[in-house]
Parts: sequence; structure tokens; C-alpha cells
Amino acid sequence: MSNEKIPYKIYLKENEMPKEWYNLRADMKKKPAPLLNPETGKPMTAEELSRVFCEELVKQELNETDRFIAIPDEIHEFYKMYRPSPLIRAYFLEKKLGTPAKIYYKFEGNNTSGSHKLNSAIAQAYYAKKQGLKGVTTETGAGQWGTALSMSCSYFDLDCKVFMVKGSYQLKPFRREVMRTYGASVTPSPSETTEVGRKILSELPDTTGSLGCAISEAVEAATTQEGYRYVLGSVLAQVLLHQSIIGMETKIAMDKYDIKPDIIIGCAGGGSNLGGLISPFMGEKLRGEADYRFIAVEPASCPSLTRGVYAYDYCDTGKVCPLQKMYTLGSGFIPASNHAGGLRYHGMSSVLSELYDQGYMEAVSVEQTEVFRAAVDFARVEGILPAPESSHAIKAAIDEALRCKETGEEKTILFGLTGTGYFDMFAYERFNNGEMSDYIPTDEELQKSISTLPKFD
Amino acid sequence: MSNEKIPYKIYLKENEMPKEWYNLRADMKKKPAPLLNPETGKPMTAEELSRVFCEELVKQELNETDRFIAIPDEIHEFYKMYRPSPLIRAYFLEKKLGTPAKIYYKFEGNNTSGSHKLNSAIAQAYYAKKQGLKGVTTETGAGQWGTALSMSCSYFDLDCKVFMVKGSYQLKPFRREVMRTYGASVTPSPSETTEVGRKILSELPDTTGSLGCAISEAVEAATTQEGYRYVLGSVLAQVLLHQSIIGMETKIAMDKYDIKPDIIIGCAGGGSNLGGLISPFMGEKLRGEADYRFIAVEPASCPSLTRGVYAYDYCDTGKVCPLQKMYTLGSGFIPASNHAGGLRYHGMSSVLSELYDQGYMEAVSVEQTEVFRAAVDFARVEGILPAPESSHAIKAAIDEALRCKETGEEKTILFGLTGTGYFDMFAYERFNNGEMSDYIPTDEELQKSISTLPKFD
Repeated sequence: MSNEKIPYKIYLKENEMPKEWYNLRADMKKKPAPLLNPETGKPMTAEELSRVFCEELVKQELNETDRFIAIPDEIHEFYKMYRPSPLIRAYFLEKKLGTPAKIYYKFEGNNTSGSHKLNSAIAQAYYAKKQGLKGVTTETGAGQWGTALSMSCSYFDLDCKVFMVKGSYQLKPFRREVMRTYGASVTPSPSETTEVGRKILSELPDTTGSLGCAISEAVEAATTQEGYRYVLGSVLAQVLLHQSIIGMETKIAMDKYDIKPDIIIGCAGGGSNLGGLISPFMGEKLRGEADYRFIAVEPASCPSLTRGVYAYDYCDTGKVCPLQKMYTLGSGFIPASNHAGGLRYHGMSSVLSELYDQGYMEAVSVEQTEVFRAAVDFARVEGILPAPESSHAIKAAIDEALRCKETGEEKTILFGLTGTGYFDMFAYERFNNGEMSDYIPTDEELQKSISTLPKFD
Repeated sequence: MSNEKIPYKIYLKENEMPKEWYNLRADMKKKPAPLLNPETGKPMTAEELSRVFCEELVKQELNETDRFIAIPDEIHEFYKMYRPSPLIRAYFLEKKLGTPAKIYYKFEGNNTSGSHKLNSAIAQAYYAKKQGLKGVTTETGAGQWGTALSMSCSYFDLDCKVFMVKGSYQLKPFRREVMRTYGASVTPSPSETTEVGRKILSELPDTTGSLGCAISEAVEAATTQEGYRYVLGSVLAQVLLHQSIIGMETKIAMDKYDIKPDIIIGCAGGGSNLGGLISPFMGEKLRGEADYRFIAVEPASCPSLTRGVYAYDYCDTGKVCPLQKMYTLGSGFIPASNHAGGLRYHGMSSVLSELYDQGYMEAVSVEQTEVFRAAVDFARVEGILPAPESSHAIKAAIDEALRCKETGEEKTILFGLTGTGYFDMFAYERFNNGEMSDYIPTDEELQKSISTLPKFD
């Protein structure tokens, strides 16, 4: 433990930075179920995966044994631009709530992509470059991932083709322009440029698209062009590995000042942020060295953990990706049109799904009006205008802090503040105007989308 | 000098933070000319100024003798949210340019207002609160200042009335919503809510407004309501005082690692950032203790220093504010409609004007297409998407670094990166589409606007 007074914002020094990513699966006794080939129903081989993904990333995807994986020097070099991210004590929020709880948040929004997504984008771009590829393809919804990837590709001088969910492409021209500023090409999805896009358009000409559909187009674009591979910003085990930098930095900072979190909270869409934040802490829990409560927070409008089923499902609408065992609402699930922001994917990381299934993690769902109320409260006292996604974690952290106020417990709460909401002001405008509404899918609706699951289980 | 290796990003520790603002005027042998009462042509008294401004701020405005002014504890407390700001070595930019120059930038954009404006907003809100006021009024153009003030008023629970230039109000709904999220009321200017607004609208019903006009409305709103005062985000000596935190932090960080800048560069609109950044360095130059080159960078479309006259002028279109001696293009000057971003004020801080007139500072003007080219180059290598305003300084810094490449000189260049461009993506879109154009006002146009100067000189 350092003798220094704990600073309000903890920035690690350069020589304190993690040198390795942490591979959570190494500590899991029961491993996540393997990816399956959708045609054969058999586990995907490295060779099969390599047609879609970069070779080194395939190795990482299949690596369940090495606890630590060295972070390449080139990625350390890029980290200098935006890491370490600060671990911030939420003094102002604590004061406003009048809670005895100590609240900390790891803030990943201080970079141009505005979120933690850059952590995996730079890793995936690096391995694509190392493999000698021309470029990569991907999908993006709200645009955080696409922005992060375009920044990373620009850095390594790689071509970057982004399929952007059409609704976001039209409603969020700003993120689109950030991507273009970094040299990416941005295509509204579904598009006429792919077979799967044309098929979807012929069936649903007026659709504003979905993530699942954009994934299918991006995979097709990667596998039908020489020198391209597909990259994905969440869900996959490799993404959690890259995102473990969040948790590693947090753990080093907390250990330095002898701070032990009782509760660790993260918003959960595909699981990239939550998985990254909790990794080294969960490792301790899995090894029986320490205990923590972990809480995944998801939107009530897209409740894969709290109301989904744990089964093999398609990762994309076009059903071209490997099947993954996960908590899922069915690949046909699309959140209601009043759903703001991200966290709209139908499934959840298989690593997190397995941990949740084994009881190592809790999950709660929250409605978006109360999420935005928490966001505004947070913005006003902490000075950071949070992304709608991140605000799910804020809401849950506030709830836990208020519980401490009732019981008088001085718990230490850590949550992940994944990003800023500067590109989400239309949603804030709706909230400011009192026009935001909530939607909780009915059991019938969920049963219908869940009924589209494949029969491999 | 510290024995530590110089970190890529220098963050001061809490105990290294400046305790005082630096009042540059104390070191000026010839002081800036006093503000004049527009009705009498005589220097404004403290009492007269106090009808418009908060009492403590009037004292600061008139204080030309105290070199240091203590930063109140409450402001230190707020600083914790977003200060210290990092001093960053532009390694990636240096590498791309292939220059032997060492480039550093002080980055003020890591806060929700997205710029350095928060430094003066929090000070002005604090003094308004201390005086027991109900609230403050102000104007905003691009919205950086209004956003900063709304955050600060929210923190001190003050009412915040913002008059936003109508063109920006319509074209930049996002900043408007950030202000509303922080509880401010935002009125498009000119408006029907003030006498001066109604007068302007009757003469120019279709006008999209100007800063000078919004200032007049805000001053009227402050002076005709009990418990309100007007606050201004640039130009005034008090603002430079609050912004000196930028230079003070920078100087402490540079001194710690024995880095001595040869050239210090800042963008200049009203002068708040430039004045704040250079303050302690300029102090050394004025006292003959050190020498630095200072370069003010302004848009070729609004060239107050490089093509204006040094004379007393109105600060606002409505001619209700005190007269100020400054480099000015005339209060009737409005930049061409293709001008993107801020830096559109017709005049320049009287402190900087006087220093420029005495030859302590240089000025250059740059055209916006080349500014955006520099912005994109910078964004791609340094990872930060800069505000159009800040990009003027980037452009000049790149030019100086390339000059070093020619001569082989290893100069140290410091520039101020005042903010991020996340709310300026319409301008980036124009640039990305090749639709951005330049405009340099003709001599005739400038003579016409300069001919509107009052005859007090």
C-alpha cells in the first residue's frame, strides 16, 4: 500500500501500467461452451474461424488456459494516447446522496471514440496489420465501436469498412462524420452492397436495420474480399481479453491504495465492458482468494440475462456467424423503437453467460427513464455527461449506495463509466422534454423471439 | 527538476496544483486602457460596473497591481472534477511531421463543456453565489461558454439564462441540450424577450444573430431583473485571470521537468485561452527574466489583431456595454456565413491588445480549410478530434515545426489545445465532403465595419 493520500482521481504512472491482459477463462473450472459451426453443429476449428477472423485473434478466442497474455509493444504505444484512464472517487455523488458508501468509477470516456471500445479496436487492428491484411469490416450501432475501430485503423493505416445500422446512420450523422474523419467508409445497413443486405431489403424494404443484420453484412464483406477479415466489438472472448485492461488498471490502482470493492457494477449489452472491468476481480473469486458481488445491469427493454434463455443461438440475423451458447432473447429480437442508446444486442458474452449461470454474478434490469434521471443527476454533480449505456451502471450504483444509506453500511462500490453521451443528445433532448418512455417486452413477445433459436442444444 | 523520466502526459499531483491565479497586468509597465462609460466617455467606476457584473469580479477587473490572487477553496473543490488538465507531448505528431522540434500541448477539452471555458465559468458562478444572487445571464455562440456556465451554475444552484446566437441554436441542438440538461434556460437571440432584441428583430427580422447582439440581450436581461448579473466568457481581464490556471499548471509542469518552451501558440478569438496560457510566461518576459515567442492565431475571416485597428470600440451590437480599447474590426463586423466554429468576435482582449501593441506578441491569421486539414491530421495521429478553434493553434504549431524541420532547429513548441470538436461535426462533414470554403474580407469590407467605431479615442 502506498503511503500517499488517495488522490481524487487515480492515474497510474507509466511504470505501473499492466503489461498483460488477463484471460478470465483460465480460472474457470467449467469453461464456456465452444463456438459451433452453424452448418455442421460441431465446434468451430481454428481453421474455420480464420476465414472470418484474424489468425492471432482466433488463437486468443480459443485460448482457455493462459491466464496472462502479453500486450504487444505497439499497443502499449497507442495506449499512451488515452490510457491510463482515471479511477475517480465519486465524492460529489456520495455527498448528494448522503450515503456512507464509498463510490469509485473507472472512466473510459476520455478519448475521441468516447468509450471503452477503443481497447479492443486497437488490439484487433494491430493483429490485422500484423497479418498483412488490407483492411477489416465491422458493424456499428450507436457508433461507438465503429468510431473506435476507425481511429485504430487510421493509426495502423488499414482500410476500415463500417456497416452502420441505418437508423443510427440517419439519426446520428455526427458519429458517422467522426468515422469518416478517421478515413473509414460508412455504409448504412441493410445495404445493396451485400447479398444478405439485398435479401433483407427485399423482405423488409423500410427496415431501419439491426445490429444482427449489420453483422451479417460485415461478415459477408470480409469473407468475399481478398485481404479482409471481420472484427467484432463485443460478445467474443477475445474482446473481453482486450477489455481486461480496464479491470487490470483498476485493480492495480485499488491495490496501491488498499481499496477493496464490495460491489462491482457494470452495464451489460454484449458484455465487453463488464467482462473487462470484472476480469481480475472475478479471477480472485474463482480462485477463492477474495469475494466480491458482481452486478450486470441491462435495459429492461433488452433483458438477455434476466429474462433470456441460456442456449446456443445465432450471433447475427443472417445466421452466417458461429453459434454461441449464451443468455439470449433470440436472434430475431429487436428492442422497441423507443429504446435509446446501445445495449441492444440480443445475446450476452458466453464467458459472462457461463459465470452468471454458475451463480458468480448477479443481474438486474432497469428502465430507461430512471436511467436518464440517474444520468442527469450524475452529470450535474460529477461534471461528466454519461453515455446512456454507462448510465445503467450509474443507476444501479446509486441504488446500492442508497441501500447503504438505509442500513448505514460503509460499502465500497465500484462501477464502470464506459463513456460519454455527447453523441446521444437527441435522447437527452427527449428526456429533457419529458418525452422519454419505457418499454418492457411482454412474455409473449420474448417467447416469440426465443422460439427462433436453433435446435443444437 | 524532477529526476523522473518525463511522462508522455504530465498530470500535476494535487499538492503541486497552483493555489493562485496570476494577474498579468501587475507586470505590465504600461497598463491596458481603462473601460469607458459609453454615455460619458469617462472610465467606468466600480459602482457603475457593479450594476452589470458581480462585485468581486469588478474588483478583479479593476485590479492591476496584485500579481497573485488566491483561488477560493470552493473553486479548488470544483477543479477536482476536471483539473489538472494534461500537458501532452505530441510524439505522434512529431513523428508524422519528421520534425526535430519538440511539441507539447495543454489539453483543456477533457470535461463535459469540452473546452477551457469552464475555468472562468466556475469562478464567475462562484462569485455570483457568494454575492447571494439568484442567477446570471450570458450569451453563447458555438455554445462552449454557455455549456460551461450551465455546468457551473448547476453546481452552485444558480439560475442560468443563456442567449444563444440563433444560427447556432438552430444548427447546434446538441450543445443546447447539454445546457438544458444542466438546468439552464436557452433563448435563441435575437429574441422578443428584450427591448434590444425586439429592436434588432424589427430591423432585421431574418437575422441569425451575432455574439454582439446576444451580449446586448444578456446584459439587458441581467440589469432589468432583481438578483441577476451578467457574465462574459472572454475578452475581459477577469476572464484572463481565471484562465491563467492553464498557464500556471503548464509552467509548474514544465519547470518540474526542466522543459523550456521557445514558442508558445494559442488560438485567439476574444483572447481567453491565449491570455490564460501565456500569462506566467509573459510575466517572465515582461520582468525580463526569460524570453519566449508568443503567437496569437486568428481566422483569416475574422482578423482583429492582424487587420484591425487599436482603438476604443463597443463590445456589443446594442452598445450598452462599456467601451474597451482593443484591436477591433468594428462592432458591426460579422464573419462571412461560411465561417465555421467560434473565434468570431470583432475585438480582442484589451490586455492582449496592449501587449501586441507593445510588441511582446506576434499574430498570424490562417484560413479555415487549411485549419481543418491540420485538425484531421492531428486527430488521426494524436487521437483527439480537436475543436475548430483549437485547430488554428494546431495549424500554426505544425507550421513552426515544419520550419524547424527545414532549419534543423530543435525548438520546443507549446500550444493550447482548448477543446474537442465533438459538437462541430457539421463543419467536419463539410470538410470531409470537400465543401468547405475560405473567405478573407476585403479591405473595403473591413474599412466599412471599422468606420462604425465611436469617436472617443
